[in-house]
Amino acid sequence: MKTIIKPIIFMSVTIFIVTVAYAQFAKPEEAIRYRKSVMFLILKHFKPMGAVVQGKVTYEKGTFTENADHVNNLAALPLAASLAPGNDRGDTTLKSVALDNPDKFKKEAESFEAATARLASTSRGSDMDAIKAQFGMVAKSCKSCHQQFRTK
Amino acid sequence: MKTIIKPIIFMSVTIFIVTVAYAQFAKPEEAIRYRKSVMFLILKHFKPMGAVVQGKVTYEKGTFTENADHVNNLAALPLAASLAPGNDRGDTTLKSVALDNPDKFKKEAESFEAATARLASTSRGSDMDAIKAQFGMVAKSCKSCHQQFRTK
Repeated sequence: MKTIIKPIIFMSVTIFIVTVAYAQFAKPEEAIRYRKSVMFLILKHFKPMGAVVQGKVTYEKGTFTENADHVNNLAALPLAASLAPGNDRGDTTLKSVALDNPDKFKKEAESFEAATARLASTSRGSDMDAIKAQFGMVAKSCKSCHQQFRTK
Repeated sequence: MKTIIKPIIFMSVTIFIVTVAYAQFAKPEEAIRYRKSVMFLILKHFKPMGAVVQGKVTYEKGTFTENADHVNNLAALPLAASLAPGNDRGDTTLKSVALDNPDKFKKEAESFEAATARLASTSRGSDMDAIKAQFGMVAKSCKSCHQQFRTK
């Protein structure tokens, strides 16, 4: 009896947690739109930093730090939306492998969050080499996740 | 001669500032997409707080504060994108009156930013009446701006 009850309790708890986490998305289309919105905003604040790092745009500390902060604030948002059921179907670029391997996907997302947090703090200093190196770490994190979980 | 040079210098400085501020948007469509993305994300984090305030969803401090933080972090983003030239044309809900009265629009945006910052700090406390009141202030700010600057 015990062996039957345990999985049932486990399943109920799991369903409850999932319901709470995804409650803000009534439909998969909403979660997809949410994730795409976040990714577009991240891109729009990431690119100007890239232009500075590549020497195409003059470095201006205030603007760079502001962009780093925005990317950092946005970094935690895509995770829950990406793992909402149905996110791999329809007008999406998310591979099903993300939903099949949520722990692997979560690890990538957390590594991205950590890298953007470090970029935000590094950007407050004046060590341009450290800023460039940390920007590179964020870019590497983007690439790693996209290679595994984004369709071409 | 002086009277001619002064306006020229002023215009050059103005053009430079505007160029820097809007540099991240190559086309008006990009600024519109950016603004819409921000507004959608704000809505998705604002609505769950509304459900709590209306008693439809059980109050959970961590989730409420997280949503208040997200709205607060996103609140400053739409301003520059909204005032980018061409934002009132095409697939947009922004009235031309916003671009014609940037100071009035800016005042509404700043009032929204201040209200969301207060909600984020109030949500850290345990005075539910204060939290509800401040949520109401944010809602009022949304409504005020939408009534003036958003098409139906």
